[in-house]
Amino acid sequence: MDKIKCGIIGATGYAGAEIVRLLISHPLAEIAAVSSVSYEGMKLSEIWPALSGLCDLPLISGDDITDGKTECDVVFAALPAGVSEEMAEKCVKRGILFIDMGADFRFSDAATYEKWYGKPFAYPGIHKDSVYCIPELHRDRITPDTLIIGNPGCYPTSVALGIMPAIKHGLIGTDRIIIDSKSGVTGAGRKLTQDTHFPDNNESFNAYKAGSHRHTPEIEQTVSELAGHEVKVTFVPHLLPVNRGILSTIYADMKPGTSLDDVYSAYSEAYKNEFFVRLEPKGSYANIRNVRRSNFCDISLHSDEHTGTLIVTSCIDNMVKGAAGQAIQNMNIRFGIPENTGLTDAPTMF
Amino acid sequence: MDKIKCGIIGATGYAGAEIVRLLISHPLAEIAAVSSVSYEGMKLSEIWPALSGLCDLPLISGDDITDGKTECDVVFAALPAGVSEEMAEKCVKRGILFIDMGADFRFSDAATYEKWYGKPFAYPGIHKDSVYCIPELHRDRITPDTLIIGNPGCYPTSVALGIMPAIKHGLIGTDRIIIDSKSGVTGAGRKLTQDTHFPDNNESFNAYKAGSHRHTPEIEQTVSELAGHEVKVTFVPHLLPVNRGILSTIYADMKPGTSLDDVYSAYSEAYKNEFFVRLEPKGSYANIRNVRRSNFCDISLHSDEHTGTLIVTSCIDNMVKGAAGQAIQNMNIRFGIPENTGLTDAPTMF
Amino acid sequence: MDKIKCGIIGATGYAGAEIVRLLISHPLAEIAAVSSVSYEGMKLSEIWPALSGLCDLPLISGDDITDGKTECDVVFAALPAGVSEEMAEKCVKRGILFIDMGADFRFSDAATYEKWYGKPFAYPGIHKDSVYCIPELHRDRITPDTLIIGNPGCYPTSVALGIMPAIKHGLIGTDRIIIDSKSGVTGAGRKLTQDTHFPDNNESFNAYKAGSHRHTPEIEQTVSELAGHEVKVTFVPHLLPVNRGILSTIYADMKPGTSLDDVYSAYSEAYKNEFFVRLEPKGSYANIRNVRRSNFCDISLHSDEHTGTLIVTSCIDNMVKGAAGQAIQNMNIRFGIPENTGLTDAPTMF
Amino acid sequence: MDKIKCGIIGATGYAGAEIVRLLISHPLAEIAAVSSVSYEGMKLSEIWPALSGLCDLPLISGDDITDGKTECDVVFAALPAGVSEEMAEKCVKRGILFIDMGADFRFSDAATYEKWYGKPFAYPGIHKDSVYCIPELHRDRITPDTLIIGNPGCYPTSVALGIMPAIKHGLIGTDRIIIDSKSGVTGAGRKLTQDTHFPDNNESFNAYKAGSHRHTPEIEQTVSELAGHEVKVTFVPHLLPVNRGILSTIYADMKPGTSLDDVYSAYSEAYKNEFFVRLEPKGSYANIRNVRRSNFCDISLHSDEHTGTLIVTSCIDNMVKGAAGQAIQNMNIRFGIPENTGLTDAPTMF
Repeated sequence: MDKIKCGIIGATGYAGAEIVRLLISHPLAEIAAVSSVSYEGMKLSEIWPALSGLCDLPLISGDDITDGKTECDVVFAALPAGVSEEMAEKCVKRGILFIDMGADFRFSDAATYEKWYGKPFAYPGIHKDSVYCIPELHRDRITPDTLIIGNPGCYPTSVALGIMPAIKHGLIGTDRIIIDSKSGVTGAGRKLTQDTHFPDNNESFNAYKAGSHRHTPEIEQTVSELAGHEVKVTFVPHLLPVNRGILSTIYADMKPGTSLDDVYSAYSEAYKNEFFVRLEPKGSYANIRNVRRSNFCDISLHSDEHTGTLIVTSCIDNMVKGAAGQAIQNMNIRFGIPENTGLTDAPTMF
Repeated sequence: MDKIKCGIIGATGYAGAEIVRLLISHPLAEIAAVSSVSYEGMKLSEIWPALSGLCDLPLISGDDITDGKTECDVVFAALPAGVSEEMAEKCVKRGILFIDMGADFRFSDAATYEKWYGKPFAYPGIHKDSVYCIPELHRDRITPDTLIIGNPGCYPTSVALGIMPAIKHGLIGTDRIIIDSKSGVTGAGRKLTQDTHFPDNNESFNAYKAGSHRHTPEIEQTVSELAGHEVKVTFVPHLLPVNRGILSTIYADMKPGTSLDDVYSAYSEAYKNEFFVRLEPKGSYANIRNVRRSNFCDISLHSDEHTGTLIVTSCIDNMVKGAAGQAIQNMNIRFGIPENTGLTDAPTMF
Repeated sequence: MDKIKCGIIGATGYAGAEIVRLLISHPLAEIAAVSSVSYEGMKLSEIWPALSGLCDLPLISGDDITDGKTECDVVFAALPAGVSEEMAEKCVKRGILFIDMGADFRFSDAATYEKWYGKPFAYPGIHKDSVYCIPELHRDRITPDTLIIGNPGCYPTSVALGIMPAIKHGLIGTDRIIIDSKSGVTGAGRKLTQDTHFPDNNESFNAYKAGSHRHTPEIEQTVSELAGHEVKVTFVPHLLPVNRGILSTIYADMKPGTSLDDVYSAYSEAYKNEFFVRLEPKGSYANIRNVRRSNFCDISLHSDEHTGTLIVTSCIDNMVKGAAGQAIQNMNIRFGIPENTGLTDAPTMF
Repeated sequence: MDKIKCGIIGATGYAGAEIVRLLISHPLAEIAAVSSVSYEGMKLSEIWPALSGLCDLPLISGDDITDGKTECDVVFAALPAGVSEEMAEKCVKRGILFIDMGADFRFSDAATYEKWYGKPFAYPGIHKDSVYCIPELHRDRITPDTLIIGNPGCYPTSVALGIMPAIKHGLIGTDRIIIDSKSGVTGAGRKLTQDTHFPDNNESFNAYKAGSHRHTPEIEQTVSELAGHEVKVTFVPHLLPVNRGILSTIYADMKPGTSLDDVYSAYSEAYKNEFFVRLEPKGSYANIRNVRRSNFCDISLHSDEHTGTLIVTSCIDNMVKGAAGQAIQNMNIRFGIPENTGLTDAPTMF
């Protein structure tokens, strides 16, 4: 087959550059165009010298990609929340797959989006054609006709994979789920801030947006769907002084009579055919080191018998399974090629 | 007055070396002797070149300190759990204050100690004369006659200071307290392990001893005393790839009718005269960066209204307020000098 | 063609594990066997959980690989200096290619090896059949009949690529070459030491083995060959608190009448067809970040006009171009497949 | 005596905040005023929460300090090059000591300043009254009447202390001195840049301003004075991914007949009475870890016999001995109090 022609809008940010990095090694896809608002006219490899000789394409405008000046089969949009709909609409009209890395196509409920993102849908009409897809949970939502994919957020991906079997099999209560997540600094983006200035960030650690992070409703949407009723969670993210990786520690009440072995069985069964989800042996702990620069999600299960609490630690690379890798995984599904194509590299554990 | 003569047993480990580092700047104390099993006969500054010219004392044996060969007013024992009692007994006989950095004198209940540390008290008789003291909670326990002080653990200190006012004033429920703690690597000690080998530890993050860490009963002892009834907590520590600092994120149910303002008032009141406890302004977050290399404990308070959860983040430097600094604070109390003597340096925030 | 069957001796160390990591993505090679002295009997993925599902082979003994119990076309030996010759001899007898990651086959002069490594060649006979190969300098040395390849050291590779064109074209004097190199901690290996214990290594920096590092004679061998006469260099390595990367800053006198433009021309010409060597634009600086986890070598050229000094900074990933990647590059040459096969992934720049 | 009243202009930058941090523990000085252009009107502890309860002074304007609205005995100016002269002139008129952390008072030769900093002296008249002082070399330059002190740069301090005895005693040639320096990121200041954004800076390493850094003429001024004739040096700085510390590796030809022992003797003699300069034992290496957050300078000496090269590694904390600590050391000299007052804390070695 011809290689899938990919356009990346916002290619100089971390998520966009990571899509480029992964596509360079993808055997069935090729990079057709890259865009940037800030650096239009320069070569991508001038912004990211690491890509010299591998991707020296010129940075064009987003419109030049969506308006079809460049031939693309799929457009990845790595943009801030709130600006993707218009571009999506243009792509849909041309029959080009649009994969949004932002939040604009993650919510089935317009009101929830408006409440948390401060604006209503600008193009309500196109949302019915969009799908939100964490492949291990929702791959069937993607059909050959899918034209818009809302790529999941990084924290919600780590949580959904970490909690799915327990919720689905009713092994835990849903009225007091606590999620304590820690993310590497690339999750905060490439934009300069004092808190992410090296001497301020290095050797530091803190919580932020406690109980108010925008990923909360996305997590609740997925958990509620799995539970079959509305579920509220307490979600507190922390900023970890490392480049990559998210580890979410999830606390929930084990249902009376449920043992850790029952939980293990449910998880083993649920993920036995999933290439990207790995269950740690009993007693071992998931570590962001073991998924670094890969699309894997490692999960470890423990219980605190004396309080009856299930403790799940779920970790991913926020830039890969939490962003670019999962987007490519979704692209692979949409084009009917093996889901892990271009995503089988080993993690770089040191 | 004469300076307080201090002996440090186990001076080459991190906790012991940190006591030395702090005592070098203490205006009313002096280092009389330092011991080491592994390096006896060498100079402390050969093991820690950073101390050259500041503390070049020879490393002698612990017995030479406890047997009174060297004149000391106080002996700090930075030893593994299980070996302090015999030394304490010797010091008590000589009327020398013994401050144990380990776990041997932290428990009022012998059975709890035996259950978690795998051995009974070897010298049960001396425990009645020992006090466990987090100064902000227990300073009155120390009298001029106190001869044994069980210095609190690092995690328990961060938790006790972070939760005390809420428990004391009954602002939170006590049946579902979740404590998610993150500690710098010095907390794991100077002993070499593969997980703390730089290339394995750097850029890594994981939970460990979930629900089974030995600091759990110490935390429960303090919380139960404050609550006036037995309280169980879920405690999960994580290893943070930084040298110093502990941040504990504490989750508990807010009592119906309690507002975040009520909580703020209780904490402000409780700590208004405490030099070492600082309450973050509303909306701000405690960061280990701001307490680094100091004896401060910074606390921030947030609530998740939609689940009714109080979220406390409490952070300390695990080596200072979590170990050496608090030990010196306890020494200052015991000798009747201002509690913050030698502990007023500013944190090194970058 | 059939895939090249690879055996890795010493697969649990950093260099061995890195060969495994890279071979997992190699389209024309497969991992046939992995060995370990310390962990024989366990699965490689038990030592390196990051490889779970990707390489779960059992760790066997080195003899089981060299004795042909497992069918291999090539054996990579990631072993300490001094133990490779016997294994090499066994492989040669079987006609299996032996690629030594250690120092035993790097020296054409037995006396030099003996002087720096403290022992004579144990199997002098096989050395005449071995080749030392930095592909960009020596690829012609490898023929389809080559049975032993001495894979170059990490520092010597960064220096040889950084200085070759200047020496070859006589643009610099050879009587005062200063090489100040800085290496990430993986270069020190997986063996535990106090200096590489995280809290001791993190935020630290120091020189080591100044003027006495074993890579000095290897560097001098290459530079002397290029110059056509014996050259001595001053080489001082430093330990950088990062996982990966070597940056060598090379200082030499520019020949009278030579301009920086002349140097640029020579380097551009020398490397214009080299996939793995990238010359930085004038004014830019090579950064280990841009070659991280790749087989690239980035070189930047500057001059200090007021002292007439050429300043070359050459950087590589010490584990890839400095070890495992170059070994695979050499394997590719030997088996007549494209030299960059399996080595075209983009660096992970963040 | 009354405490020395100190005003800090530019107190929110790293150098200014470090002066505050150190003065908080100074027994004979007190902070009278702090200024900031960007944050005027806020409290210093709002910008640096680590200082809450320790220095909550309001940030006023620089003029309010120099115009005498606040009573100060000394004013520290932590400002960019080029803006100090006017403030210095105001202080001189009032008889207030002015210590400039910038470059405006570091050069005896106006032409050199103009060549490297792109502007002539604005107030040439006051320079004759200013002194440039690295105490270990120039303390006699400071008298009770000194009104302006040009505080040395960080790199020049590490180099001057590292090379002084060798130059002074003619143990090395001066025609080919190579200085390869590495500095922590605080040296680049608090201003945000892409290269110092955490994910870009972390795990990275590169040279910058090779042969063109503004500290070159300052180094040459000191070395030339010591040599008694004009000396040129090659100076290449590198950015180290740590918060603090400078390590300079200095290479020079040993004079014929000079042994490493001769060099050791000269250094031991030169620094035998210097509290802040520590000579490493033979065979040991200076490490930035051992001077961290202290005013010490650790020096190690090695030689490469086979090339006749002396290798000096000299390290300091760039924020302390390289900036704030040395400024306070100079203040102490000027006010006739012990030179190490307030600077005797032990380094924080982990």
